[in-house]
Amino acid sequence: MGLVTLADIRAAAALIAPVVVRTPLLRFDDRLSVKPENLQPVGAFKIRGAYHALARLSDEARARGVVAYSSGNHAQAVAFAAHAFGVPAVIVLPENAPAVKVAATRSWGAAVELVPMAERESRAHELVAERGATLIPPFDHPDVIAGQGTVGLEVVADQPDVEVVLAPVSGGGLISGVAAAVKALRPSARVVGVEPELAADAAASLRAGELVRWPAADRERTLADGLRAEPSELTFAHLRAHVDEIVTVSEEEIGAAMRRLVRDTRLVVEPSGAVAVAAYLRRAAEWPARTVAVVSGGNVDPEVLARVL
Amino acid sequence: MGLVTLADIRAAAALIAPVVVRTPLLRFDDRLSVKPENLQPVGAFKIRGAYHALARLSDEARARGVVAYSSGNHAQAVAFAAHAFGVPAVIVLPENAPAVKVAATRSWGAAVELVPMAERESRAHELVAERGATLIPPFDHPDVIAGQGTVGLEVVADQPDVEVVLAPVSGGGLISGVAAAVKALRPSARVVGVEPELAADAAASLRAGELVRWPAADRERTLADGLRAEPSELTFAHLRAHVDEIVTVSEEEIGAAMRRLVRDTRLVVEPSGAVAVAAYLRRAAEWPARTVAVVSGGNVDPEVLARVL
Repeated sequence: MGLVTLADIRAAAALIAPVVVRTPLLRFDDRLSVKPENLQPVGAFKIRGAYHALARLSDEARARGVVAYSSGNHAQAVAFAAHAFGVPAVIVLPENAPAVKVAATRSWGAAVELVPMAERESRAHELVAERGATLIPPFDHPDVIAGQGTVGLEVVADQPDVEVVLAPVSGGGLISGVAAAVKALRPSARVVGVEPELAADAAASLRAGELVRWPAADRERTLADGLRAEPSELTFAHLRAHVDEIVTVSEEEIGAAMRRLVRDTRLVVEPSGAVAVAAYLRRAAEWPARTVAVVSGGNVDPEVLARVL
Repeated sequence: MGLVTLADIRAAAALIAPVVVRTPLLRFDDRLSVKPENLQPVGAFKIRGAYHALARLSDEARARGVVAYSSGNHAQAVAFAAHAFGVPAVIVLPENAPAVKVAATRSWGAAVELVPMAERESRAHELVAERGATLIPPFDHPDVIAGQGTVGLEVVADQPDVEVVLAPVSGGGLISGVAAAVKALRPSARVVGVEPELAADAAASLRAGELVRWPAADRERTLADGLRAEPSELTFAHLRAHVDEIVTVSEEEIGAAMRRLVRDTRLVVEPSGAVAVAAYLRRAAEWPARTVAVVSGGNVDPEVLARVL
């Protein structure tokens, strides 16, 4: 299976530059810096992959519109990118998606359909068949992975001597792209994925050497609603090729990391966005001096935020 | 009275580059972008002026140490800069400074003295006399103003066609530097100061054409604890030369702006840091399409943050 290359990621960087925020690295403590992707236009790194995928569509394909299904942030990203390109979009969201994410998706002019978690994908494919629209998958596409990989390009540009990069794993698009970039530019750096203990299917898959499926009902237990997806064959191939380890974190550790990010770095972070910092804090003494954690998103319901303050 | 020049500010930019975060502009809505200075190492723009002032001290002066008095963020900035240069620091804080600011100042290794608000300045001068240390004033010094002015350089670099820059006014160091930079680089841009209605002494001074003093007890009424100082002759000269207008905002408007910043831009902002956005929201229809608001700081007690969510 062909993996995304550094050249693909560099090409993506050029295409997405007009809309993506060039996020700085922020010092968290003496050894950790964070990459605040919660500051992107849709509040998450997802804009990178989604905008890149739309940028590469033909005018003809754009005219027929796009469809996406997502646990939330990808939905907003496709809606934002579709708005930017003047393309009609239908977004299929799970019924339990946070209200803030549903509202934000609609705010970009996309049509939203709410369906049970397990029916998202099939409903999206129905819409594609009905309309001739293009499905923009949340992670299972080389253009999406290449877009997310620009996070890794920027990390190495800003910290060329980086030793460890920590990033969340859900469907695996972010870590696939980041790992492809980091390993190409700095082979000695370790790339470590992070999952909630309650949705640790990727860790189980890497241990088993093949994709291990967890029931959706199990993965839905975590508060980290952005980390309930599971890798595809394509992203799992990237994980096996490039990812050194996956660390799992508890729900309590996720809350504690959110609190620290709010207080110490003045970032509003969603549970999924805090897992990489949670993994750092879990064994802070073990990480080397130049560790970077990707803070992937900040779309959190205010009640959830208030609880962890 | 000599005003800070563009050349001074450019020289400051070179000196502070090693420690200051190059903050991006973040889109707030179709017309407003924000400059998130809450992402600086001490959670506020103050690191720019303080670090610059210490960078320009002789080795001999550094060996004798530094002293600062402040309503909070300047204290942390001097403590941080002193730590970076290996210089001993004593910080004089008002007794009512937020606990989070006191703790942060101490965390950088500085000695802290808590005194009544009105005695801060005299106690700092005593310490200078006793120790031969150098006073690093929060705003009344050209090196501090030049450091803060680097915010303006970056705004124009990132948005060369900017039409309005909104920035908070307290002692006036930030807006003096920002206005000097913006008016030199883009004379057609308007520079607008923002104050709480409860501490609107600078607005009164500009109307009167001379410094109008408000009793400290009046200025202490605002929740925006970073905006309780009043301009000096030096900063007032910059305001008269470069600032087009001062807008005042209510306490309610400050809270609403904090809430919008948390929800829409995922930034943790202190009340003082939100006033420029509050001024934008107060008369949103009037501002032109390319308006920038400086979000000056993010050191807020969690209880205050939870109240506005």
